[in-house]
Amino acid sequence: MNQAGSKAVAVVLLSGGLDSATAASWARQKGYFLVALSLDYGQRHRVELECARHIAADLGITDHVVLPIDLTAFGGSALTDPQIPVPRGRSPATMAQGIPATYVPARNTVFLSLALAMAETRGAEAIVLGVNAIDYSGYPDCRPEYLDAFQSLAGLATKMGVEGRPVSILAPLVKLAKADIIRLGLNLGVDYGLTSSCYDPDPTGRPCNQCDSCRLRAAGFAAAGAIDPRLTAI
Amino acid sequence: MNQAGSKAVAVVLLSGGLDSATAASWARQKGYFLVALSLDYGQRHRVELECARHIAADLGITDHVVLPIDLTAFGGSALTDPQIPVPRGRSPATMAQGIPATYVPARNTVFLSLALAMAETRGAEAIVLGVNAIDYSGYPDCRPEYLDAFQSLAGLATKMGVEGRPVSILAPLVKLAKADIIRLGLNLGVDYGLTSSCYDPDPTGRPCNQCDSCRLRAAGFAAAGAIDPRLTAI
Repeated sequence: MNQAGSKAVAVVLLSGGLDSATAASWARQKGYFLVALSLDYGQRHRVELECARHIAADLGITDHVVLPIDLTAFGGSALTDPQIPVPRGRSPATMAQGIPATYVPARNTVFLSLALAMAETRGAEAIVLGVNAIDYSGYPDCRPEYLDAFQSLAGLATKMGVEGRPVSILAPLVKLAKADIIRLGLNLGVDYGLTSSCYDPDPTGRPCNQCDSCRLRAAGFAAAGAIDPRLTAI
Repeated sequence: MNQAGSKAVAVVLLSGGLDSATAASWARQKGYFLVALSLDYGQRHRVELECARHIAADLGITDHVVLPIDLTAFGGSALTDPQIPVPRGRSPATMAQGIPATYVPARNTVFLSLALAMAETRGAEAIVLGVNAIDYSGYPDCRPEYLDAFQSLAGLATKMGVEGRPVSILAPLVKLAKADIIRLGLNLGVDYGLTSSCYDPDPTGRPCNQCDSCRLRAAGFAAAGAIDPRLTAI
């Protein structure tokens, strides 16, 4: 099924952003053989999929599925409905006060369920994702208690779970501040110039520098005392 | 968002088969305003999608999303990989002894996660699905404990859950024998001639009468003392 050899296989949910690139590098450093899944879900920031391809190549991942799943069929989010504007200019304190318009209904559940399907067909021991619940936009499906519930579900949902080999849901960044994530990634050699975080980039992929995701990223690089290479990469 | 009026909205996972048609009729009789979701996942029995459209029309459902999600990208099942044969001629006792090749990795988790996304955008109070764990093929994601775990997850995964309005996962058939499902459906006026259960129909949609699903259906109609109208409908 793959060239993992004696290594344990992990499915990495690779969005093309800073966090998932860091989580993928973390998993590789832990010794996992990586396969990757990216979702083409109708996001307005489709440029992240091109980034995901570059990150996968940079990590030597050859089994990278980019799966179309049209969440615009449901709508209800600024990321999948062009009529709903992306919030701009919010402070991190404001972001922590509620669930913003960029929340995509059930997105991480959809993504994790597809990662679970891929994990079972690849014989993977783990699913790795870059969610974090410190410097984030208040999405319910980024919280540790949500991930614990998905871990319980995964054990019951699959043949491998029934057979006593449930997949492990690994979210190594869940309790890290953005600056700590960036420090970790820089130590691991992540090329952040390949990553894109902006929710609403221009057609060339240039970040807006005003959405929650841009602002969290900028604050993180500042706090880590590092320069964001993405700002000069495109 | 819809014409529900004062009725509570339910998202029905409509496969086109006997069970989900029955579950949908049950939900309508309970007073729910129904919206429906069907998944075009690369199943070899795609004829069921045409059935799902007819069933939705018969039930007066106007908000029916048929969503493509290409699970053949992962494979690993007789239903999504033409190289893996569908088991034929198995007895119900044999079916209960293991997870067969028709198991699609994480299928119900993928389906329920997408139903959860639709439920949140439609303001639905419930998700209704036709799984059952009595006369079935031994799939892990049809069991009551699996559904309970998904219920727990749904409360944590979504904005509506965080806001104290978690969606209810309703599986009214989960503990019914196939004959009881058919009796229930006949009482509700389900037109089983519109439904298709076969995993491996011929190109015209005619059932093989040999796969697990055909055999469970035939045994169910026999035990219910009823004639399957599908046998003469096509």
